[in-house]
Amino acid sequence: MLDKIAEDLEKIRDAKPLVHHLTNYVVMNETANTTLAIGALPVMAHAQEEVEEMVSLADALVLNIGTLEPYWIESMILAAKKANELGVPVILDPVGAGATRLRTETAKRILNEVKISVVRGNAGEISILGGFGGKVKGVESEEAGGEVKEVAHNFSSEYGLVTAITGKVDIVTDGNRLYQVENGHEMLSRITGTGCMATTVIASFLGVEKDYLIAAIGGLVTFGIAGEKAAKGNEGKPGSFQVALFDSLANLSSNNIIEMGRVTEA
Amino acid sequence: MLDKIAEDLEKIRDAKPLVHHLTNYVVMNETANTTLAIGALPVMAHAQEEVEEMVSLADALVLNIGTLEPYWIESMILAAKKANELGVPVILDPVGAGATRLRTETAKRILNEVKISVVRGNAGEISILGGFGGKVKGVESEEAGGEVKEVAHNFSSEYGLVTAITGKVDIVTDGNRLYQVENGHEMLSRITGTGCMATTVIASFLGVEKDYLIAAIGGLVTFGIAGEKAAKGNEGKPGSFQVALFDSLANLSSNNIIEMGRVTEA
Amino acid sequence: MLDKIAEDLEKIRDAKPLVHHLTNYVVMNETANTTLAIGALPVMAHAQEEVEEMVSLADALVLNIGTLEPYWIESMILAAKKANELGVPVILDPVGAGATRLRTETAKRILNEVKISVVRGNAGEISILGGFGGKVKGVESEEAGGEVKEVAHNFSSEYGLVTAITGKVDIVTDGNRLYQVENGHEMLSRITGTGCMATTVIASFLGVEKDYLIAAIGGLVTFGIAGEKAAKGNEGKPGSFQVALFDSLANLSSNNIIEMGRVTEA
Repeated sequence: MLDKIAEDLEKIRDAKPLVHHLTNYVVMNETANTTLAIGALPVMAHAQEEVEEMVSLADALVLNIGTLEPYWIESMILAAKKANELGVPVILDPVGAGATRLRTETAKRILNEVKISVVRGNAGEISILGGFGGKVKGVESEEAGGEVKEVAHNFSSEYGLVTAITGKVDIVTDGNRLYQVENGHEMLSRITGTGCMATTVIASFLGVEKDYLIAAIGGLVTFGIAGEKAAKGNEGKPGSFQVALFDSLANLSSNNIIEMGRVTEA
Repeated sequence: MLDKIAEDLEKIRDAKPLVHHLTNYVVMNETANTTLAIGALPVMAHAQEEVEEMVSLADALVLNIGTLEPYWIESMILAAKKANELGVPVILDPVGAGATRLRTETAKRILNEVKISVVRGNAGEISILGGFGGKVKGVESEEAGGEVKEVAHNFSSEYGLVTAITGKVDIVTDGNRLYQVENGHEMLSRITGTGCMATTVIASFLGVEKDYLIAAIGGLVTFGIAGEKAAKGNEGKPGSFQVALFDSLANLSSNNIIEMGRVTEA
Repeated sequence: MLDKIAEDLEKIRDAKPLVHHLTNYVVMNETANTTLAIGALPVMAHAQEEVEEMVSLADALVLNIGTLEPYWIESMILAAKKANELGVPVILDPVGAGATRLRTETAKRILNEVKISVVRGNAGEISILGGFGGKVKGVESEEAGGEVKEVAHNFSSEYGLVTAITGKVDIVTDGNRLYQVENGHEMLSRITGTGCMATTVIASFLGVEKDYLIAAIGGLVTFGIAGEKAAKGNEGKPGSFQVALFDSLANLSSNNIIEMGRVTEA
């Protein structure tokens, strides 16, 4: 698995897949820079007049509902339908699902109306979307409504997609295979948008890897290791950590993946 | 006063109040990171379909008019009415009031239609809103139309709220008590959004402190000290200063408040 | 030429021109900070109710189409018409023109309906807008449809404006005089928004320099030198480079311009 991920990382840097984002205002700059740092190319476009055309040029599509409004919801559906038609993989980040009906219902609508390749969220978000209950405070997971592996497994079975639930330990499953990723660092919870950045890194892997389970694991391992490296010397310093995170994403080597990756079948 | 502020800072870090922002596009990322750095939790949400629900989960609400458009104005009113109903404190940051009629009139409309707990602005903005005249260039205060303490005092009396006017020396009053805060650093004027960040820190204090005057002073003392610490070694370097500002916000101790706080009754 | 640019840089710092931006969500924070770092003042405002009033206070107007939507297009036209009426220079950054019809047609509509002073784009964007063909991937230039100098020359002749095409070597022309600028650094392509930041620096020069050709060259020389200085010690580190870029913009001296500027008539 780590060999394959290391290989995919090289592929990203060679192929420079274009990652089309419809994402929230808070993280637009940092997810664009995340995309560049990992070696892919970002584009942000949300007008209904252009999303279909833009996604036609893209290798992966990110739908992130962090600062929703009605116009954007329709744009997301339009972009994703076109992506489905063309076989472009789509990742959904249901930021804050469970906190408000708009977010919960929009995430469900997207899951029901278009084919999602990977969903990445925290335990509260996925648990609530999956009908297990749970609690979300703003955009933070407070608690899941069930055992996380079971929540993930059922979610994948219900929607036929790869589910990635991030937290202290990340769980990734396609409904059959189930893995846990133990990379990452507490400092990642001290700055805004790191969940969204993880989604962007997975999207970059989706741009070059047809096995979506491997792409999701690859994104989380890569981003987690970058966080570990960035935390060195920067514990308790969120400003410096954020800067170092981009540096370490850009400098992550295949060797880092193989030596530092912590993926186990669960 | 400083003892109380130091205690409130600890309370923020224990209780992690949720601060719901309807703020401008320019500062969304940095105010979210400011909220996290001080120890609170941020959420950005502006859709009319969700603001009432989101503010119901929140401990404080920020209305910041820095990049207004009509849809957002209605969202702000909706969110603030709900906040009023539930007793959630509301802080208004009238960015650029006085520069255009839209901003001046929107700020006035908000002040008249909902109950604001604290207003934080520069001397030009508050002076113009209070009917004293003055001059605002874009989002910079050029001059107040009256003596700042008098402007602040009258504003508080007229609207029944705490007025915080920031500048070289900050003035904070509830119409009865009037304080000045001398913390801060010239470097804070060299990067964008520091006024908005100060507002966010006050909002974090409002999430744990029922005396809004103390919350406003607490926010300005805390943010000012963070600026002073961040400026060490970073004078004339706005990029490095911005990074250090998040580091110093995250590392500010109760002792820093007590030893470095400069608050005097005026 | 370099003497004149050095003088204009001092003028920016003395006069602090107000640069009104209608720009994309991705770069709002970093272009505001770019404006401050170079010594000018930024304001972001896009509501149709206020753009005419805001631009009336401004010394230059930036139209950047990086995250278009219909409402913003009308705002851009309104703001630019008012700017034309008042003699405020207008710079257009046609981000992603050529990637979608919306972007191509909006850029053309702006060029046809209002008087633009300077257009700054990459070779693909300008080439496609000028009818030469070419290829744009998201917001990256893949190829121009003609020899870049010829593309620039014809574009300036057709629209009666200064054309600045940025790339490894920048080409600037008003249709008569044609210069190339060789400042810059590969690291500028490793973070998002550096094209938009270059546009903002040109806009700051437009705020003090009536010869738009000199303003465009001045902006590119200044931004390029800042990039070169920021890259020292930060090669391969995009996070650190971004921070250093603001520091070096803020610290750029007239001497830096004169000693490091690389402008030649072509």
